[in-house]
Amino acid sequence: MSLSHDSTVRGFASDNYSGVHPEILQAIDRANGGHQSAYGDDYYTAELDQLAQRTFGSQAAIFPVFNGTGANVIALQSLLPRWGAVICAASAHINVDENGAPERIGGMKLLPVETPDGKLTPELLDREAWGWGDEHRAQPLAVSITQATELGTLYTPQEIEALSAHAHSKGMRVHLDGSRLGNAAAALGVSLRALTTDVGVDIVSLGGTKNGMLLGEGVLTLHTELAADMKYLRKMNMQLGSKMRFISAQLLELYGTDLWHRSASHSNAMAAQLAQAVRQSEGAELVYPVQANAVFAKLPNEVADRLREKFRFYDWDRVAGHVRWMCSFDTTEADVLAFSAALREELTSYHGK
Amino acid sequence: MSLSHDSTVRGFASDNYSGVHPEILQAIDRANGGHQSAYGDDYYTAELDQLAQRTFGSQAAIFPVFNGTGANVIALQSLLPRWGAVICAASAHINVDENGAPERIGGMKLLPVETPDGKLTPELLDREAWGWGDEHRAQPLAVSITQATELGTLYTPQEIEALSAHAHSKGMRVHLDGSRLGNAAAALGVSLRALTTDVGVDIVSLGGTKNGMLLGEGVLTLHTELAADMKYLRKMNMQLGSKMRFISAQLLELYGTDLWHRSASHSNAMAAQLAQAVRQSEGAELVYPVQANAVFAKLPNEVADRLREKFRFYDWDRVAGHVRWMCSFDTTEADVLAFSAALREELTSYHGK
Amino acid sequence: MSLSHDSTVRGFASDNYSGVHPEILQAIDRANGGHQSAYGDDYYTAELDQLAQRTFGSQAAIFPVFNGTGANVIALQSLLPRWGAVICAASAHINVDENGAPERIGGMKLLPVETPDGKLTPELLDREAWGWGDEHRAQPLAVSITQATELGTLYTPQEIEALSAHAHSKGMRVHLDGSRLGNAAAALGVSLRALTTDVGVDIVSLGGTKNGMLLGEGVLTLHTELAADMKYLRKMNMQLGSKMRFISAQLLELYGTDLWHRSASHSNAMAAQLAQAVRQSEGAELVYPVQANAVFAKLPNEVADRLREKFRFYDWDRVAGHVRWMCSFDTTEADVLAFSAALREELTSYHGK
Amino acid sequence: MSLSHDSTVRGFASDNYSGVHPEILQAIDRANGGHQSAYGDDYYTAELDQLAQRTFGSQAAIFPVFNGTGANVIALQSLLPRWGAVICAASAHINVDENGAPERIGGMKLLPVETPDGKLTPELLDREAWGWGDEHRAQPLAVSITQATELGTLYTPQEIEALSAHAHSKGMRVHLDGSRLGNAAAALGVSLRALTTDVGVDIVSLGGTKNGMLLGEGVLTLHTELAADMKYLRKMNMQLGSKMRFISAQLLELYGTDLWHRSASHSNAMAAQLAQAVRQSEGAELVYPVQANAVFAKLPNEVADRLREKFRFYDWDRVAGHVRWMCSFDTTEADVLAFSAALREELTSYHGK
Repeated sequence: MSLSHDSTVRGFASDNYSGVHPEILQAIDRANGGHQSAYGDDYYTAELDQLAQRTFGSQAAIFPVFNGTGANVIALQSLLPRWGAVICAASAHINVDENGAPERIGGMKLLPVETPDGKLTPELLDREAWGWGDEHRAQPLAVSITQATELGTLYTPQEIEALSAHAHSKGMRVHLDGSRLGNAAAALGVSLRALTTDVGVDIVSLGGTKNGMLLGEGVLTLHTELAADMKYLRKMNMQLGSKMRFISAQLLELYGTDLWHRSASHSNAMAAQLAQAVRQSEGAELVYPVQANAVFAKLPNEVADRLREKFRFYDWDRVAGHVRWMCSFDTTEADVLAFSAALREELTSYHGK
Repeated sequence: MSLSHDSTVRGFASDNYSGVHPEILQAIDRANGGHQSAYGDDYYTAELDQLAQRTFGSQAAIFPVFNGTGANVIALQSLLPRWGAVICAASAHINVDENGAPERIGGMKLLPVETPDGKLTPELLDREAWGWGDEHRAQPLAVSITQATELGTLYTPQEIEALSAHAHSKGMRVHLDGSRLGNAAAALGVSLRALTTDVGVDIVSLGGTKNGMLLGEGVLTLHTELAADMKYLRKMNMQLGSKMRFISAQLLELYGTDLWHRSASHSNAMAAQLAQAVRQSEGAELVYPVQANAVFAKLPNEVADRLREKFRFYDWDRVAGHVRWMCSFDTTEADVLAFSAALREELTSYHGK
Repeated sequence: MSLSHDSTVRGFASDNYSGVHPEILQAIDRANGGHQSAYGDDYYTAELDQLAQRTFGSQAAIFPVFNGTGANVIALQSLLPRWGAVICAASAHINVDENGAPERIGGMKLLPVETPDGKLTPELLDREAWGWGDEHRAQPLAVSITQATELGTLYTPQEIEALSAHAHSKGMRVHLDGSRLGNAAAALGVSLRALTTDVGVDIVSLGGTKNGMLLGEGVLTLHTELAADMKYLRKMNMQLGSKMRFISAQLLELYGTDLWHRSASHSNAMAAQLAQAVRQSEGAELVYPVQANAVFAKLPNEVADRLREKFRFYDWDRVAGHVRWMCSFDTTEADVLAFSAALREELTSYHGK
Repeated sequence: MSLSHDSTVRGFASDNYSGVHPEILQAIDRANGGHQSAYGDDYYTAELDQLAQRTFGSQAAIFPVFNGTGANVIALQSLLPRWGAVICAASAHINVDENGAPERIGGMKLLPVETPDGKLTPELLDREAWGWGDEHRAQPLAVSITQATELGTLYTPQEIEALSAHAHSKGMRVHLDGSRLGNAAAALGVSLRALTTDVGVDIVSLGGTKNGMLLGEGVLTLHTELAADMKYLRKMNMQLGSKMRFISAQLLELYGTDLWHRSASHSNAMAAQLAQAVRQSEGAELVYPVQANAVFAKLPNEVADRLREKFRFYDWDRVAGHVRWMCSFDTTEADVLAFSAALREELTSYHGK
């Protein structure tokens, strides 16, 4: 078919509005041809397993799945008995953006905690970390944190380590939703391992799509015993891909080269430039520290609406006047400059009235 | 990375051991570039919607999902209240190959019926079509048939029509698992619509992966009212892809051109050649009529095992000595000839002992 | 067997620490003898149906179930599609005391809202009443309120009416957890209907056990269409009793006579006496208005612990020093006097140190 | 209220059409009065625990629940990981009479096997006992047998032992649905332990209601490690009764005295008398061996329908002309004589035409 979209349209709505990184597409091409066993018994998935161990330690394994919700639900189920509950930030993706899949499909209860910046602390954890042994209470046996958070903020390795130690001391295990883990590691200047294996995380949803993959994420288990059940959980949760080589090849390309770091650094840098533009714009201000590839700004609804006629993005909190701007691997300096100029123009027009 | 598999390995294990059809890869390439709204609000998904109506009728809609199990569970849920049950052939993929996902994730009960050839009939349906109004019995409110069946057999349009009419007359709705619908339509020489919309089917799992796609299937709703809830079911069941344009573009390429027909016809033809070779081989025989791209043969376990050293394939029933050989869009005449020769050689060697 | 407990032990721990009201036991005795159809096709259940219509209006029906969690989950499921969510007070029993059964078994998401006194208002409702049509958000399609609340406070009929009207205007339906509905009606001096049918409630968990029954609650549907599916939901949720006559006979005795009112008025009166004693005790104070049969008091942990050596009761919030004292149909004035005296004694001893 | 049913109506429809044994009612009365901790921390439940150990061995524990479906689902969940499956007879209550609760609520897959008489054998088990390690197959990790079976037949202790040994040798555990376990033990002249603990059963649904209790069953765990999680499973599955003393007191009375044996022996004897009457009736015949309290007979539909005008009972298989007659603890010889006479009369009238 000769159908084709208008590829000049660009915006700041989400890092999944962008397409596929060219190097990822090449990796898909290379993985094509001939026959490979389905469901993970293939060359690329075996290589991915080796990569997991090199990158995350000798007990690590990566199980390719389709999407982030699937990765989160499977990872959390593997940490919990049927009566388990998960403490998370109220702003966590699992709590607000997954249509209740953790509850409905995963059969778990979430115990959300309000946070100032999307980050849990040992103190915040303790608000819901109680009641073990009381059968009336869904048993809090896992903690889920997001890195980078849904608000664009970051945990330092030390913060994760303190949280993990606190959770473990109370018999809870730690899940990290890392759909933007690369952005966090690049921004902090540390390895992926320094944010996971080395600081007590037990299991990770390892992002792919938001950092340039076509489709695919990984459940990254960091202890041998967590890997044993994973194949059953993945299959029963409808996240087992037949031609898995094509997901594995993408993950290999992303994490087996410096591609994850290049792409994440770039999107982070674009967000930093955009944040700088906001700081210099009269009438707009940043809501949260800009630490990864997300910029949250406060500005008049009317300005946001006019700006949106040119660049697509989402309101975050309409009442408060908060909007979210995301940068992607393919966001250009020109995009940021054009957007910043439009922002200033609309602000000037608004305040000049 | 320069990693690459041995692309000369070939076999007859499954139509998902093959890779991606080159025209599909080109469609993915074309869909790349620029920003497109995520989660289905994109150019290609809109085009797919148009294609659905042109191909399957004015009430039709296609909802891209990740895999067949996901498509089946979502489609069946949309036909059922929480207390519903599904009558299906005991050999159905939903009953034997999905690790209980329809029950565990979909919350439905399956009422399997033994069949001689993987096909339900009105009479077979009636074995489980009873008990409405009795709260002790999971209420049989849907029927699921597979076309082509898991045993490589086909329903004629008339057979589907009779089954649908019978089901509807009893208040049940009809799901068609069409992971190989293209193979069936090509073999029968009818349109896709002649096997679905025109013969009373209510909802379809529209195959993609097994006919040359990288990844992706569609839930095809054939009545307007079934489409309304689909977006919620897809999301909560963890089957909503963010960069949906890349699944939609594949489905568009497959079903918007003659690609589905070319590929399916080819794999059917290869299976027919292989079946002919079996008929001509002393000591092997066909188990089921070869009507699509699957060949089921009976031969000594020892012969199967030696043959498998050269070509990968699966035992179907070790005790009965049944094996399954699948042909794919990329199976070549040379593959069939080489395999047939090896088969004859092993049979001769075995019987000569 | 001649085994028998020490029936002189009494306390203020919960209204389900008390036993069965003698008139209820007599009703059970009367329902015994001969054969009655199981699963609800019996004399007493038919009578209960008549009572439901007389008491709650011509569209009402009562479906006996085993316990409150079961009643809540079934009632809420009947209001929701598979992707539905329930807005409730954070302190609601469904949120804190049911080990996630609404999520795990009912497959729903709860959207809890912090409240000052366990009561929702239209304004509080609006904190979570948004996002319809967005498939990423569990769709808020039901509201659940508790009357009397878990904190011993009451909604006026006008408050319920305003909340129902607000919910309905947004397409949500209203569930009332009425495990202590009798206490509320008796305290407010209104009929049971004035708190349910007449003020827009759609479905009720009608309490039994906490007001003197041996075991049993009812799902009370207030619209004809809600009753149709109830038998299937009850059975699949494992809440269908075979010898249902014995649950129905209890509900008939409780709500078909003035027993519910006598018992509830009495336990309310005992709580009022106890509250008065608290007010007169130096060093203890009431935490919430005492409007039904619960008394929440703030006092030093050490005093609570010493008091508990004589009378069993629960801490509510150990850090804040809050305890909960419940009165029951069989709480006597002597119980309250003895307890009040012990309270004063311990307070004096503590403050005298 | 003075409402009262017609207690002269009697029949052979089910052992749960009868009421409560007078000794059970007395036990309920004795358990009343004073305050006892709710949810199982009471005198009677503690005594029941002692009884469990005396009767079933030192590792045994009984967890009171509401009904048989609840007991079955909880017991089976405790044997299975999330991806587990249960092999059972196709005629098992869990497969045909629980509206899919094991699947929907328990999240398990059933693997039913056709049997001639409701009994599994090692050979029949092997039809579904395969596929461990293959994630596409729901993993068969438990077997469920019913004693007495739904067809009124019995396993000998040796048969259960052989089945358990076979199951254990393959890594599966054994559940026994004992809603009529007393009838089996009384008929076989063995202890309850001889049918459970001593022959390798791991967990039991211990019947109460069908042998004269008002309401209540027990989950009987026979290994210490199975007891640990039970309280959570019971609560989350909505089977935790608050005034548990009244269920425990009934179970204590039933199983702590000879009441279970007296009642079961009596209902068995009545069934034997009825079976003898069938054997002596021209035109009716027994379908299965009459080994407990159920009689399955084959007779013309017209005769069954006329007989049913006087005595209520159920068709079992209308096409085959099979009916089921159940005897209860309160079935009298006069009942059997009257029924037998009516049977003969209708048969004579039918055949005389």
